Amino acid sequence: MITSAQHQFSAAERDTIYANIALRRDIRHFQPGGQVEEAQLQRMLAAAHQAPSVGLMQPWRFMRVRHAQTRQQIQALVEAERQRTAAALDERAAEFLRLKVEGIGDCAELLLVSLAPDDGTVFGRRSMPREMALCSAACAVQNLWLAARAENLGLGWVSMFEPLALAELMKLPAGSLPLGLLCLGPVATFYERPMLEALGWRQTRPLADMLMDEPLFELS
Amino acid sequence: MITSAQHQFSAAERDTIYANIALRRDIRHFQPGGQVEEAQLQRMLAAAHQAPSVGLMQPWRFMRVRHAQTRQQIQALVEAERQRTAAALDERAAEFLRLKVEGIGDCAELLLVSLAPDDGTVFGRRSMPREMALCSAACAVQNLWLAARAENLGLGWVSMFEPLALAELMKLPAGSLPLGLLCLGPVATFYERPMLEALGWRQTRPLADMLMDEPLFELS
Repeated sequence: MITSAQHQFSAAERDTIYANIALRRDIRHFQPGGQVEEAQLQRMLAAAHQAPSVGLMQPWRFMRVRHAQTRQQIQALVEAERQRTAAALDERAAEFLRLKVEGIGDCAELLLVSLAPDDGTVFGRRSMPREMALCSAACAVQNLWLAARAENLGLGWVSMFEPLALAELMKLPAGSLPLGLLCLGPVATFYERPMLEALGWRQTRPLADMLMDEPLFELS
Repeated sequence: MITSAQHQFSAAERDTIYANIALRRDIRHFQPGGQVEEAQLQRMLAAAHQAPSVGLMQPWRFMRVRHAQTRQQIQALVEAERQRTAAALDERAAEFLRLKVEGIGDCAELLLVSLAPDDGTVFGRRSMPREMALCSAACAVQNLWLAARAENLGLGWVSMFEPLALAELMKLPAGSLPLGLLCLGPVATFYERPMLEALGWRQTRPLADMLMDEPLFELS
């Protein structure tokens, strides 16, 4: 384990890290019968837990779904939400229903990530308590996602569910919010581009569209 | 650039990626007079923009603060919120006020990250529209954070501000939400542990506390 606060990454290491970020994909297609080694899962969860959090609140919670019966009940909730989404999408409903939007039935491991009940942390979130808790939990998932790609495993974040129904099914503590069903496992291939883009659902926008100009203030 | 969907990371590369995740810190101490190269900033922003987003909505927006006058106005907003936070912290107010909670005045570059106005995306967020937009934006910041560490630069996410006041100051489009002031630049050292832990403000919790057991369902 590297502990030096002075550690400098080399240019080659930097490029490896950028490749990890660039090659991560939201995966819905998994290799049937694939497995995740226990050591891999532990490394990945440790990486998730190294995420930053506002006021060190660490609001992420992970549950590993081990039973096929649970997985089936979860899948039924996701399917119900998929139908509601199709209805809400109106004229794109048929196109949407042809997309494969989750790999819950095929992935080697299924993890539920949820936001913990609010612990009342004030530091860094007095003015945006809910938002900052959510951002912290998402940073942990992004770490997990990058860790999965580093392990050459695919991960897909499924958010198509009614959170209250899923919280009830999984008996989460009151005040928890399920954020994602994380489908994890070996894949035959990682998509070259985001799947929704490759299938023509939506185009990604260029970085330039994300950059805003600083407003000019009159010198007083 | 690596484009192969079949790319496999080696064990050594995997360890580099894990080191990047492990050594990332929330930084408030910067080297005076430090600079970030333009090429570094562009690589980092490109990495942020490779983040996942629900329905490919890409709701992250970045603004580079170039003028000293703007930075001073921002710092005044943060200082006002720091005082309100101290008041809200009650018996820990004095202890809190001794902490250095941001490096806005010292960092080489200051970026504002905000959530874009809602674009109405339904895919993957019919049931949790606000939450999923926030999570997507946070994934982009986490990419940026890891990219900064890969460049051997420090980054600190400051969320101590009244979002509406900051949105008004920075003339953000209606419906935007400022999420963070990202302080970026060279550092003398990366903290060995999270600063809030090293200074005794709060202890991190073990990973085991974050893992929940799957509920047992009766077989029917």
